[in-house]
Formats: sequence, structure tokens, C-alpha cells
Amino acid sequence: MCELLGMSASVPTDIVFSFTGLMQRGGRTGPHRDGWGIAFYEGRGLRLFQDPAASSESEVARLVQRYPIKSETVIGHIRQANVGRICLANTHPFVRELWGRNWCFAHNGQLADFHPQAGFYRPVGDTDSEAAFCELLNRVRQSFPEPVALELLLPGLVASCAGFSRLGVFNCLLSDGDWLFTFCSTKLAHITRRAPFGPAQLKDAELTVDFQAETTPTDVVSVIATEALTANEPWTLYAPGEWRLWRAGECIASGVVAG
Amino acid sequence: MCELLGMSASVPTDIVFSFTGLMQRGGRTGPHRDGWGIAFYEGRGLRLFQDPAASSESEVARLVQRYPIKSETVIGHIRQANVGRICLANTHPFVRELWGRNWCFAHNGQLADFHPQAGFYRPVGDTDSEAAFCELLNRVRQSFPEPVALELLLPGLVASCAGFSRLGVFNCLLSDGDWLFTFCSTKLAHITRRAPFGPAQLKDAELTVDFQAETTPTDVVSVIATEALTANEPWTLYAPGEWRLWRAGECIASGVVAG
Repeated sequence: MCELLGMSASVPTDIVFSFTGLMQRGGRTGPHRDGWGIAFYEGRGLRLFQDPAASSESEVARLVQRYPIKSETVIGHIRQANVGRICLANTHPFVRELWGRNWCFAHNGQLADFHPQAGFYRPVGDTDSEAAFCELLNRVRQSFPEPVALELLLPGLVASCAGFSRLGVFNCLLSDGDWLFTFCSTKLAHITRRAPFGPAQLKDAELTVDFQAETTPTDVVSVIATEALTANEPWTLYAPGEWRLWRAGECIASGVVAG
Repeated sequence: MCELLGMSASVPTDIVFSFTGLMQRGGRTGPHRDGWGIAFYEGRGLRLFQDPAASSESEVARLVQRYPIKSETVIGHIRQANVGRICLANTHPFVRELWGRNWCFAHNGQLADFHPQAGFYRPVGDTDSEAAFCELLNRVRQSFPEPVALELLLPGLVASCAGFSRLGVFNCLLSDGDWLFTFCSTKLAHITRRAPFGPAQLKDAELTVDFQAETTPTDVVSVIATEALTANEPWTLYAPGEWRLWRAGECIASGVVAG
């Protein structure tokens, strides 16, 4: 199993606090030693930091912690390999361009006997996760060669994720930089922070941050993670089969599909 | 104009020395203040560091200098914007997946009135460079939906680059991680270092490296750059219209197209 971290915010926000908690699980408080990655959207551009080394020992991870990059949409992942070797090509998140936008994807879980037909998008590495991402994009592309509104896109995304989750475990984060789509097959939690902001205490490291000092009263910041990252805040668990669509910090659509 | 930096090596090699020279031109000894990027292949994976800030002042550039990443194929670029805003999405190198490999591209020059039809690959930003890269990949894909041998691929790459160069200036580096294709429309230089290795003195910074201490006798390392990066070595200039294909440090094919 791996751990996921997503953020959707109304203003460019620094995710160093949550990332610091997550990276402790990469070899220190958790067993996810087989690489990590984090992608920050900056406008339509995407900044991707990855390392096949354990995040608690990674030089690049230390840079990310020291160097606060502000973003409205972030997808992060730490890996405990089950399918695919430990190497950069197998390190989440994965990125592909579709309709002139960077689509970014990270997955927690595994799929049994998943061998989709080679389509336009093809995996570079050999994980089931990247294969599922490519298959999902191939389906989007086949249905919609040209860009469509999110309302038209959404049912296909939900159906694909629901289908994948029937083959195993499929918790995922997917974004095109504008919205953040999240699907829970077994395990995912979320929290939305808004004024009045208070202090938050990481579960995995001796670190407290006072969000009031870091934010303005109109900021809305939602964090989505495999497990709650803080000890003193009320995280909400996703139900199995639940999906949520986030934009600018708010959940703008959600639903639950039958198992 | 921008500056290009490419490397092809027979063994994973640290490019920090050449990168240190190049990044001085990003705002210190040169006018290329509008961003920089460098991509390192690691097996089939690709590690991309980019910043829309001047390289001589970039925190991420300092990480790349401090943290020697070894690679067999590298593409780097520093930018002086002419077409397209200064932002991450317009920062070279650009990356797309084709045939399950990461293709990476950087361009020096500009194209007049270049507005190719929207194809499968579409630019995320608004540079002529990324538009040309997408058009080139769309043509490859149209000719060869499935992977083909390099000998079959090469004539199309050369023809596309020659065509682009008739619309303006088109010096470029292109790689799929296995080979490094280089095309000179106006300005490009190369050097191949092999045993016996000697010391090299950067033109743009007070730095000398003794490659003998850093290499083994069988290493072959070629560096391709817009201008010679060292003061004491015999760089060879490309002719206008000249292309060279590099693999594992050696030039394995070359030619010149009529202007």
C-alpha cells in the first residue's frame, strides 16, 4: 500500500506542513520506502519532484520541505512497491498531456490481472497504476477527442474508477490543474480548513503550525490523504465507492457508487 | 535567443560542471533571465527541474548544482523569452510520452507565423517551441502509430527540423532517453571527451574540473551546447543545416540538409 496526499486551495498555498507529515511515513513512521513524488500546479505548468529513494532520506524531499512552493492544486504520493520495480519510471505521480493540459495522477492500491490494450497513452514504467491512468485517459480521449465541460467528463471518470476498483483496490487522485478528482475504493480522508483557522498538530512529527498566521480570512484549503495527517482536527473518512470533486478548496460535487 | 545544453554519455555521468557554466548565462554572464530547465533520464524515467526565475538566482538550480544526478542523457535550456509569457508552462524542456517512452525537447530560436493544426499532442503553454515539438510528435505518430527502428524514424525528424528552420531559427535537442537528436539551424557546438581526460576550465565561472579524476578510461561523454562552455578545449561548430544523432556518448549518424 501507498499513501496519497492531495490539496485543493482557493489561493496558492504552501503544503510544506502536510508534506512534512507525509514524508515521515516514507521509511520512518511508515513502511513506504520505495519512492515518493509530489506535483505542484503553477498556472497550467506542473512542477514535479520525485525520488525512488525513501522520502525520509531523500535530498530532493528536503529541498521541497525547505523551499515552500505555493500552489492551488497538489498531488503527492509515497510508495510501498507491490507491482513494478523500484525506479524513477515507476514513481507516482504520473503525468500526461491531454487537450493541452497536464493531467496528473496518483494511485493507492493494486489491480489483479490488469492488462489493458495498448492505446494512445502507454505506460513508461511497469506499474498497474500507470497502466490504469493511461487506460483512463485513452477512454476519455476516445469519448471526447475535443475538450468538454467537466459535467460531461465526470460520469466517465467515475465509471472508470468504479470499474478499476472491482479489480482490486483503487484509491486515486487525478487533476488537470483546474479541478482535483478523488476516488475512494477502501481508504481516503479529507479535511477543509477555513476561517477561523487554528493550530494543527502533525501525527507523524513534532510539528505544530498555526494556520491563522499563514492565511487570510477568505482562504479555503482542503487536504485529502490516505489517513488523517493531524491529531487535533476532525478529518472525515470517505465511504468505499465515494468520489469527490474539488475546486478552489471546495468540494463541488460528490457521490457514491455501489460496490 | 536561448542557450541549449545536451549530454550523451556511455555511463551515467554527472553534468554539474557544464550546468554550472550554463546557469551563469542565466542572468549573470548572459541575458537569459526568463527561466531555465534541465531534464535527466534515469532509465526510462525522466527527472525534470525547471524554474521560470533566472537560473543564476534560482533555489532549484542551486539544488541541481549541489546534488550531482548521474545520467546518460541530459537536455538543458536557459531562456530569454521572445514568444510566450514568462511562466512555468513556457519553460523548456518540454516532455511528452510517445510509444511508452518520455520524449524530451528544447529549442533555441523562433518561428515566424507558426500555427500548426491542433493534433493529438497540444501545447500547454504558448511558445512556438512547444507548438513545434507537438507538431513534430504528431507527424511521427501519424507516420508510425507503432514504434519503429531509429533508421526509419530519422529521415522524418530531419525533414521536420529542416522545414521548421525555414520558418525562422530552429536549433534543437530531442531525446527519447535512448538517443539524443540534435539539429543546428544557426548555432550549435559539440565536444567529445574520452581518455586521456584532462582538466577543463569553464568560460563563465571560476571553475576547473579534472575529468581524469571523475572518469574511468572507457568513458565517452559528449556535450552539445549553443556556445562552447570551456575555454581550453577544442569545440567543433555545427554547420547550418547539420544534424547529429548521439547515443552512449558517440555520434552515430550525421548529415547536412540544404538551407
